[in-house]
Amino acid sequence: MSGGVEWALHCCVVLSGAERPVPAQRLAQLHDVSPTYLAKQLQALSRAGIVRSSQGAAGGYALVRDPGEVTVLDVVEAVDGAGPAFVCTEVRQCGPFPAPPRDCARACPIARAMHDAERAWRASLRSVTIADLAGTVADEVPPERLGAALQWLRGPAG
Amino acid sequence: MSGGVEWALHCCVVLSGAERPVPAQRLAQLHDVSPTYLAKQLQALSRAGIVRSSQGAAGGYALVRDPGEVTVLDVVEAVDGAGPAFVCTEVRQCGPFPAPPRDCARACPIARAMHDAERAWRASLRSVTIADLAGTVADEVPPERLGAALQWLRGPAG
Ligand code: FES
Ligand code: FES
Repeated sequence: MSGGVEWALHCCVVLSGAERPVPAQRLAQLHDVSPTYLAKQLQALSRAGIVRSSQGAAGGYALVRDPGEVTVLDVVEAVDGAGPAFVCTEVRQCGPFPAPPRDCARACPIARAMHDAERAWRASLRSVTIADLAGTVADEVPPERLGAALQWLRGPAG
Repeated sequence: MSGGVEWALHCCVVLSGAERPVPAQRLAQLHDVSPTYLAKQLQALSRAGIVRSSQGAAGGYALVRDPGEVTVLDVVEAVDGAGPAFVCTEVRQCGPFPAPPRDCARACPIARAMHDAERAWRASLRSVTIADLAGTVADEVPPERLGAALQWLRGPAG
């Protein structure tokens, strides 16, 4: 899993609390990430239809949908891709006793066990939304610090 | 996830059906894998206490424990390591509004969501044993092919 997932999730939580579009530069400053690295993650989120950018003096990034409708899985898949972590190369069809293709319509039992586990992983990530995360952050972060950060996000670039 | 997982799991299922130790070379031939690549996976399984090798004319690899006591998770962690896929770098402690260390005794809500999902993944892999996989293989693979392969594993190296 790439390090971009941590940043992208933090970014979405921040945007869910922002009252207006946040310039990419501000998002980078807020978490002390390089703007180049940031741009890559924001592009991935943008391609996945999770954020959109607007131009102009008040321009910046914003969530496209309600934060209650964006799941953690959406963000993870936007950044790291939706492909399976376990890839079956059909080793059962190799060697001196290969399974004939007609016996391989169904995935190998080993691949099924691995895919079941990935389904459980995805189901867990799908059960949490950006709004859920933002709610927990609001419960756990002292209101002064949260307020100061949101205030700063609104202010002029500096 | 490394490709070694697929091979290592197939190898453990094969060993659970073998009546005596299987030479590494046979295991490599059976699935048409390079002996060098094979050696790496077998060493990982051996370090994790899942297989052991014996020397001599009848030597080779065997499972150490009952196949009903070796889980898919054991094999996956032996090959790919037991560390988390998501690594939190504490980005919340960076930037102009860092969370002070005293507020960070508990993992960040984002890290918790990611770790919950990995727990679900591990629980799923822990619920399936090598014996379970071997049972499914025995149900799904025609007995002639399975018998021929097991017969060949017992025979002289060739
Ligand atoms: S052939 Fe790929 S997991 Fe069995
Ligand atoms: S600080 Fe690492 S996930 Fe939030």
